[in-house]
Amino acid sequence: MSGSDLDQLSINTIRCTAAEMVQKAKSGHPGAPMGCAPMGHALYAHAMKYNAANPQWWNRDRFVLSNGHACALQYVLMHLAGYKDVDMEQLKNFRQLGSRTAGHPERELLEGVEVTTGPLGQGISNAVGLAIAQANLAATYNREGYEIFNNYTYTICGDGCLEEGISSEACALAGHYGLGHLILLYDDNHITIDGNTDIAFTEDITKRFEGMQWQVLEVAKGDTDLSDILAKIEEAKKCTDKPTIIKVHTTIGYGSAKQGTSKVHGSPLGDDDLANVKREFGFDPEKHFEIPAEVRSLYQSALARGEKANKEWDDLLAKFAEAYPAEYAELVRRFKGELPIDLDECIPKYRPGDKAKATRVTSGEVLAALMERLPEIVGGSADLTASNMTNMGKFPVMQKGAMQNRYMEFGIREHGMAAILNGMHAYGGFLPFGATFVNFIGYCWGAVRLSCLSKQQVLYVMTHDSIDLGEDGPTHQPIEMLPLLRATPNMSTIRPCDGRETVGAYMAYLNNKEGPTTLILSRSGLPTFDHSSPEGAMKGAYIIDDFSGKGDKKVIIIASGTEVLQSVEAKKLLTEQGVDARVVSMPSWDLFEKQIDDYKKVVFPEGVKRLMVEAASPLGFERYADEWIAMTTFGASGPAKDVKAKFGFTAENICERAKKLAA
Amino acid sequence: MSGSDLDQLSINTIRCTAAEMVQKAKSGHPGAPMGCAPMGHALYAHAMKYNAANPQWWNRDRFVLSNGHACALQYVLMHLAGYKDVDMEQLKNFRQLGSRTAGHPERELLEGVEVTTGPLGQGISNAVGLAIAQANLAATYNREGYEIFNNYTYTICGDGCLEEGISSEACALAGHYGLGHLILLYDDNHITIDGNTDIAFTEDITKRFEGMQWQVLEVAKGDTDLSDILAKIEEAKKCTDKPTIIKVHTTIGYGSAKQGTSKVHGSPLGDDDLANVKREFGFDPEKHFEIPAEVRSLYQSALARGEKANKEWDDLLAKFAEAYPAEYAELVRRFKGELPIDLDECIPKYRPGDKAKATRVTSGEVLAALMERLPEIVGGSADLTASNMTNMGKFPVMQKGAMQNRYMEFGIREHGMAAILNGMHAYGGFLPFGATFVNFIGYCWGAVRLSCLSKQQVLYVMTHDSIDLGEDGPTHQPIEMLPLLRATPNMSTIRPCDGRETVGAYMAYLNNKEGPTTLILSRSGLPTFDHSSPEGAMKGAYIIDDFSGKGDKKVIIIASGTEVLQSVEAKKLLTEQGVDARVVSMPSWDLFEKQIDDYKKVVFPEGVKRLMVEAASPLGFERYADEWIAMTTFGASGPAKDVKAKFGFTAENICERAKKLAA
Repeated sequence: MSGSDLDQLSINTIRCTAAEMVQKAKSGHPGAPMGCAPMGHALYAHAMKYNAANPQWWNRDRFVLSNGHACALQYVLMHLAGYKDVDMEQLKNFRQLGSRTAGHPERELLEGVEVTTGPLGQGISNAVGLAIAQANLAATYNREGYEIFNNYTYTICGDGCLEEGISSEACALAGHYGLGHLILLYDDNHITIDGNTDIAFTEDITKRFEGMQWQVLEVAKGDTDLSDILAKIEEAKKCTDKPTIIKVHTTIGYGSAKQGTSKVHGSPLGDDDLANVKREFGFDPEKHFEIPAEVRSLYQSALARGEKANKEWDDLLAKFAEAYPAEYAELVRRFKGELPIDLDECIPKYRPGDKAKATRVTSGEVLAALMERLPEIVGGSADLTASNMTNMGKFPVMQKGAMQNRYMEFGIREHGMAAILNGMHAYGGFLPFGATFVNFIGYCWGAVRLSCLSKQQVLYVMTHDSIDLGEDGPTHQPIEMLPLLRATPNMSTIRPCDGRETVGAYMAYLNNKEGPTTLILSRSGLPTFDHSSPEGAMKGAYIIDDFSGKGDKKVIIIASGTEVLQSVEAKKLLTEQGVDARVVSMPSWDLFEKQIDDYKKVVFPEGVKRLMVEAASPLGFERYADEWIAMTTFGASGPAKDVKAKFGFTAENICERAKKLAA
Repeated sequence: MSGSDLDQLSINTIRCTAAEMVQKAKSGHPGAPMGCAPMGHALYAHAMKYNAANPQWWNRDRFVLSNGHACALQYVLMHLAGYKDVDMEQLKNFRQLGSRTAGHPERELLEGVEVTTGPLGQGISNAVGLAIAQANLAATYNREGYEIFNNYTYTICGDGCLEEGISSEACALAGHYGLGHLILLYDDNHITIDGNTDIAFTEDITKRFEGMQWQVLEVAKGDTDLSDILAKIEEAKKCTDKPTIIKVHTTIGYGSAKQGTSKVHGSPLGDDDLANVKREFGFDPEKHFEIPAEVRSLYQSALARGEKANKEWDDLLAKFAEAYPAEYAELVRRFKGELPIDLDECIPKYRPGDKAKATRVTSGEVLAALMERLPEIVGGSADLTASNMTNMGKFPVMQKGAMQNRYMEFGIREHGMAAILNGMHAYGGFLPFGATFVNFIGYCWGAVRLSCLSKQQVLYVMTHDSIDLGEDGPTHQPIEMLPLLRATPNMSTIRPCDGRETVGAYMAYLNNKEGPTTLILSRSGLPTFDHSSPEGAMKGAYIIDDFSGKGDKKVIIIASGTEVLQSVEAKKLLTEQGVDARVVSMPSWDLFEKQIDDYKKVVFPEGVKRLMVEAASPLGFERYADEWIAMTTFGASGPAKDVKAKFGFTAENICERAKKLAA
């Protein structure tokens, strides 16, 4: 069989198998896998440098299926390529409970899936992050004769990914950085769920991407012309200072009687149509999940090539280790996710009596110290650097031609930023962070949620919390973000009250490899409290100002962040009025909930009523408190002190409310 | 004084006054108002057709300040223009608690502010909605000789708005629709908070907007060349089949010693610099808030022109009312927000024994019936029409040249969609709706939040709720969206369990003019329950299956949406096992919380333990329940039944848990 016949047989095998998976599952998307099969085959059988036997090879080419609903394609390709976790049983159990071949590709479920995709626009933005990671490591560690990092990031996306605003954000930044190792194959099939793209998506993609400083290439016959796809990929690789988009004109559901229509997008073909497809492509309709030996053998050669490339790279790395032992050791540590043992030493210390500082400032100081010590910390702000205080270390800014720099200016692109952070983390060797105002977590939730689902150690440095933000007013004052974060699995949320708690928050973040951490930081200055501590903060809640033993009635005030200040002041008033109060600082519900019951009972002894004071929606406060002072409306524009007073966040009001509750 | 001298004096007055407001407030953004003063003056003194004495004139030109942080500009312009709510005291109380001149423009606070802006990218997307509304009304109601609706929508935006992905989404759709009455003035000043746009924003805006089918014009000297700004606005108006972006090259903080730098972006100029600015522009630095009489007089002529135009239009409308009384009456009703009295008659009825239907289907049926009856209902889906079931009435799709059509294909652009709905609602006369999967509320939260803040009656039809979505898996299964919605002021959230509750949900939505409503709808079929009712649903919670009086122990099961089915089945099992159970269907917390206490006590009598069953994060469940079955992790990919069983949502498990709780 000639090479091109064999390729055609492989592509048809992929089409049939993907359609069969969807049919067996009675659920899924056959159209995109059938249309994208030539692209997928081009990548996995020919263009990509990867080793299915070693999915963690640092310098592997990365593949991202941004149109994650087409994942039957990815699973078939991974099966053929030899990924051990995708055996035939997995293909047959597509979309079934407990299988690795989930309805959309999940990074945590299946090794070889670089990022979790499906929500449209995420994958392409993750790919930008993966390519930034490569460029940063290359600029940092590659040496003359030692090109340790030179992999490409390939991503396939559909119309939906390009309609989503997040892709404009991320792709604009990719163009700005000139990411020459990023290659996007756009499945230009003119069909979305609701019909032809004519109904809503008529922009000129070429102009748009040229405007964003990308190279734009085109494959006219993407259903049949594998050699053109491969040629355009080679051409893309030659353009080293720009990312490339290849518009691959395809037919959705190619081979089906319903090809080229939205009917093949999101439903199985049906038994009859599937049988016809198989016949059309020369397969026996009676046989299921049939993979010709020649196809297996072609992919075995790809595997052998990958193993050889991996081996050669291993040899290069071994030589690099000899020539640059410090750099090598650092890389090994980074990719293992280990921290230096003497990290504590670099952390700033805060003491009572120090000048009052906003927690965004103490955060900035701790972050700067950690960045100095940990080269894996790379990140920045969505154009709020001076507000978020995320570059107090004055690290130089990453730019085209200076990709080794570690501070990033994401532009006013919160959603793209968060997805890029997920991509950078997925590359390995990075502790990425991003910053904006707390309120704008709502702009990037689509991506933050995926940090949680994929358990990625991403740091979100969110400042200008609550009505304490003041004059900018309710458009910028978060009310509902704390409940959102608290309701989300795998998210650690920490709202420190001073510098020492900020240190604890960063320690908790560094220890938490099971998901992202969000820091909720103040705009206003806060003193260092007498009994605050990093260790206390790391427990989620602790006694920051205890009962004095004087007074007949007892009450506990629970507060976090900026409200700890008024709560500690309220305690003084209560003491004067004969009520014995304890103030519990509770920067993190999730950290507290991990503590043993005995500790929880020490903090919250039975029989003492509790008043919770937090300038956020009180959803869920019943878990800890009998009553509360919280936000049940949006805030207001005005100086922070006035706004806080308006909504009852004063020592006097807290005292009054606590007194009524005391028993 | 010559006309051009007077214009220059006016522009300089605006610059000085805006800078003075920021200085007095010791907070705010002087740079953009000073740079945009010529554009603002061009619009309010010359180009715009509006009547400050009648801010509700249907056919007024709409103005949207998308870079809402520049609002000192808008407030000065409104003051000069004669809006009664912006007197000199308001200018002097900029950003102070209780003033109408909030830190960002708020529609609810100040009549004449069309939409609440500030979060970047929203205003420009609202403007697209306003322009769609105009185009739709024009295509629907204008008649030969009666051009009732022909207003323009003007919006000023900065770099930030164009970096945000939402603007790409909305502007792509604006180009697709060919909105010739939309004119965007882009304050192209090359400065964002973090510095020069070179650091992160280097795309070619001309190419990008040409790619999106906009006309692109340019004003080279935007600081000084008012006549060019006016000429380009005229040119924009001549292009009737495309929206226009005018790139106005300006200098941020024009007149300040720090002009052209990020230092004038977000902080007061300082007393010295402000004094210099005043001197530079020929004002006395010792005098404050000085507005020359000639400037006032110029704006009085603008007001007189506006009043005259309004009067002429009123006359035209009166003639229209005679010629087309039915259309006129309908318009009056629409703009008053009144509903026909016989609306009930058109609503579908559901009965026990009917074929099981998903609530997305019953929603589709009710929506189709309402659309048939209420022409003000206009909206659509973000490319999920067949899944969201939002066009079961087969309404023709709005398109360029067919803007009177009422079903909208937003494309896969959730964030843009929600902001466009806010804009359409702000125009007046519309009940706009948008649809996607529940999980993708997280993609459009930035705009949904503003529906809440601005109390806009927007309907969000969200389907494919919870793990019940099945095979698509955890990337598409919402966990945290219900708590987010519940934590947000002014949002009404309703999760019906069957067709009758769906009817109730729509009734509640139509009655709720104080904010948006989100419907949380099932993918799977559900029977009509014996004792469900629209009226019950409208109370938020009610007894759907009551105690039988048999059995020693009692327990209440609270459920919503899809989980009502398993709960009612569990009740049967409990009865068999000697436990007397009541099932409370609780589609809406916010509706329930509006009920009187006596009703609440009837539903939840004291002394009976309650088990809450809802496939969402249990944040806040303590408010109603002693224990619960809920989602504390992300979901899983698999057939819905399997996934629901895995997480304990079966009649058997509910029965087991309720039995333990019963007393």
